[in-house]
Amino acid sequence: MSLIHETMGKAQQAFLTFKNATGAEKGAFLEAIAQQIELIKEQLIPIAAAESNLPEGRITGETGRTLGQIRLFAGLVKEGSWVEATIDQADPNRAPLPKPDIRRMLRPLGPVVVFGASNFPLAFSTAGGDTLSALAAGCTVIYKAHPAHPKTSQMVADAIRSAAKETGMPEGVFQHIEGGVEEGQELAAHPVAKAIAFTGSFRGGKALFDTANARKNPIPVFAEMGSVNPIVAFESKLSANLEELAATYVGSLTLGVGQFCTNPGLIFVPHALADRFASEVSKKMEKIAKAPMLHEGIAQTYYAALRRLSDNGNLSWVTVFDSEDVLLAAPAFARVSARDWMKNSDFQEEVFGPFGIMITYEHLDELTEAIEALHGQLTCTVWAEESEIAAHKALVSQLEEKCGRLLFKGAPTGVEVGYAMQHGGPYPSTTDSRSTSVGVYAIKRFARPVAYQDMPAALLPEELKDNNPLRIWRTVDGNWQQ
Amino acid sequence: MSLIHETMGKAQQAFLTFKNATGAEKGAFLEAIAQQIELIKEQLIPIAAAESNLPEGRITGETGRTLGQIRLFAGLVKEGSWVEATIDQADPNRAPLPKPDIRRMLRPLGPVVVFGASNFPLAFSTAGGDTLSALAAGCTVIYKAHPAHPKTSQMVADAIRSAAKETGMPEGVFQHIEGGVEEGQELAAHPVAKAIAFTGSFRGGKALFDTANARKNPIPVFAEMGSVNPIVAFESKLSANLEELAATYVGSLTLGVGQFCTNPGLIFVPHALADRFASEVSKKMEKIAKAPMLHEGIAQTYYAALRRLSDNGNLSWVTVFDSEDVLLAAPAFARVSARDWMKNSDFQEEVFGPFGIMITYEHLDELTEAIEALHGQLTCTVWAEESEIAAHKALVSQLEEKCGRLLFKGAPTGVEVGYAMQHGGPYPSTTDSRSTSVGVYAIKRFARPVAYQDMPAALLPEELKDNNPLRIWRTVDGNWQQ
Repeated sequence: MSLIHETMGKAQQAFLTFKNATGAEKGAFLEAIAQQIELIKEQLIPIAAAESNLPEGRITGETGRTLGQIRLFAGLVKEGSWVEATIDQADPNRAPLPKPDIRRMLRPLGPVVVFGASNFPLAFSTAGGDTLSALAAGCTVIYKAHPAHPKTSQMVADAIRSAAKETGMPEGVFQHIEGGVEEGQELAAHPVAKAIAFTGSFRGGKALFDTANARKNPIPVFAEMGSVNPIVAFESKLSANLEELAATYVGSLTLGVGQFCTNPGLIFVPHALADRFASEVSKKMEKIAKAPMLHEGIAQTYYAALRRLSDNGNLSWVTVFDSEDVLLAAPAFARVSARDWMKNSDFQEEVFGPFGIMITYEHLDELTEAIEALHGQLTCTVWAEESEIAAHKALVSQLEEKCGRLLFKGAPTGVEVGYAMQHGGPYPSTTDSRSTSVGVYAIKRFARPVAYQDMPAALLPEELKDNNPLRIWRTVDGNWQQ
Repeated sequence: MSLIHETMGKAQQAFLTFKNATGAEKGAFLEAIAQQIELIKEQLIPIAAAESNLPEGRITGETGRTLGQIRLFAGLVKEGSWVEATIDQADPNRAPLPKPDIRRMLRPLGPVVVFGASNFPLAFSTAGGDTLSALAAGCTVIYKAHPAHPKTSQMVADAIRSAAKETGMPEGVFQHIEGGVEEGQELAAHPVAKAIAFTGSFRGGKALFDTANARKNPIPVFAEMGSVNPIVAFESKLSANLEELAATYVGSLTLGVGQFCTNPGLIFVPHALADRFASEVSKKMEKIAKAPMLHEGIAQTYYAALRRLSDNGNLSWVTVFDSEDVLLAAPAFARVSARDWMKNSDFQEEVFGPFGIMITYEHLDELTEAIEALHGQLTCTVWAEESEIAAHKALVSQLEEKCGRLLFKGAPTGVEVGYAMQHGGPYPSTTDSRSTSVGVYAIKRFARPVAYQDMPAALLPEELKDNNPLRIWRTVDGNWQQ
């Protein structure tokens, strides 16, 4: 029996117990995970920083974000209303047929295979949002460690296992698997897996999507893949705030060495302001030192992408990257006319790193046409005066069709973890635009509704009992109550 | 330009307007559809009955169900809380970075291609649950008429178009396309389509699922396919109520000539009671006359399936179907031991029509093993005393993993349209166990969340304005409010 087969068997066994854990029990487990991570924080941070080449300050911030996220899910399941409890009461006197009693709630899907990301060794990795939202839903997790930060992953996995033991969770509720692409595919294809969560490249996400759909029993894949997160700058707004907006742009583009999924790789700028904007960006970029990327492979991919784009005669460089490095990335900025940009969909491929393209548009019809050609994105950002938005509502409405989050201020990097966040957009930014991988709604990916018809009262789950012992928000005959 | 390409272009154009219709506007449109159908009801019912071979009484009932369903969705969108409005308020003083204002709600996916079912010429067809939930969500609909009831479909399509005109909806909000498998595939593959809804055979649903996933931009497919809806009878319960439960079983199995997706095609019976149960079923079935199926093709498929099963030496017939007919179906009942049943997954394939298999189990371990082998189902039903359920909770928990609706009384036919209904289950009963095609939650299939970050107050949709002008239920910083 292969290691993977054995692991999946354990995950299924554990699921049969864990699926019936109460919100309070799951909440205690999640809080214990946060506590266990707190305990190892001092050792963990330097190791994660060393493995990811990210500064300790950034990793410290990411640790706080990870802990906050875990506690948000703990609070969510302890409160309990997330299950969408819905009760339709019986009516024995209804004619021509009596009406049965039907009670519906969300139930966990089963064992979930999670693939972590290299760019967030904590927040989108072992105890990151995917693992935690799956556990919060009541699913067991098989986590495929990212090879870029093996020690970090192992330490966090140990913390989760300690928390599971401490709170009496079944063995196999969380399992940590090391391996490469082959093991990942084997996990995704295993009949016991009921969902897949992934953050990474388009190639990686698409391969898992294809595997999952080719299974005898296809399963959902929540892959967050590439996005170039366009910013659309309107003339009045940009003209009045050019220096400040250029600073915002460069800050966002180079934050974390450009290694964020919400990195604004495209910016649409009116032709009349293009030279001024380019010059401001260039001035600010010159002051930004080369910085180490997550690993050498990523730096090589970055420079290879820039070289490939250089071969395109329509693109001109605003800042020239003079020398390549095996690990350090230099920020880079190029420009192309909207007309030429539309001719080549290569310009829409994500370049992972601190690189942006300015697309210059002559007039709003051209901008509209260019936006129509945009692929699906995690975010789109509009920089416009209110009067400009009011005058071009159709354009804003069009942008909405292209993304999951639409910003009207600032930059798309810095994804808030909260109730209202949507971190997921139309294909190819994710494989399921109806889902989010950040924020409380992430839990819904791993649950499905089950309706219980005429279930004996004594057997009803707490969430569906008449007297609502958990005091959750639910609907009874269509009316919200607590 | 092909007809289909033109149709899809119109659907997309109409979507750009219709997506911004208010709940009140959509509600008025849906109510007008119901009114238009009321107007033609007297002519429609005999035509639908003639085209489907279903009795006028049944079609009259289905008309009522269809109208009720339309009005349920009208009420839902007029009330408005279904959009999951979620507000995280800004905090400009948060350190180290100010917190932005983020507001999230569900928005329509885009044009939806709907395929109707032959067995519900009204409730799951032209103005059926899929069309109506998609329109309610704000999606435009391209409806592929079912070739089994072309006149019915055309009449209902005209009613929808009249309602659209009357309430000022854009041309192309609903379009009716006639055609076969090829046209269906072309619609599903068209880049403008953003989702597919289907009710029918496994083969048909799976083909659409494969087409949708092979697209350059894959889209969700909500296909409700085959299900054999097992009933699991426990000894004490069955022994004490054998005659009554046999009557319930035969009634459900032969209702509508067995042409329901929730038809209970399998029943697990303890060995000790098998002869008595078989004899009761047989007695009751003998009194049921042959009845016409939806069309000759379906009758031929029915008899072909019975003949194929007859070739299996492990199956024995309880009632023998003596003669075949080109259109009329005779009810049939067979038996097989759990051990033999598990050897052959052909026994799990849906036989569309009034045919059931009794699976006899020797003891509960064998029953557990057999349930483990079950494919995904729309429904599972438990016939047990409360004490039997309490003693075998693991078995009930196991059944829950196999279905979307779990019944403890009666039979699975008769799917209530309400708030709590779940009509969708694990693959292969549907392609997405997280969705339902009946009940209010059906609307969620056709929407995706969009988060608006720092949107100017004047531009916010009504659902997300500070003063909550629609008085919908929503969460603000995680707290439910109205």
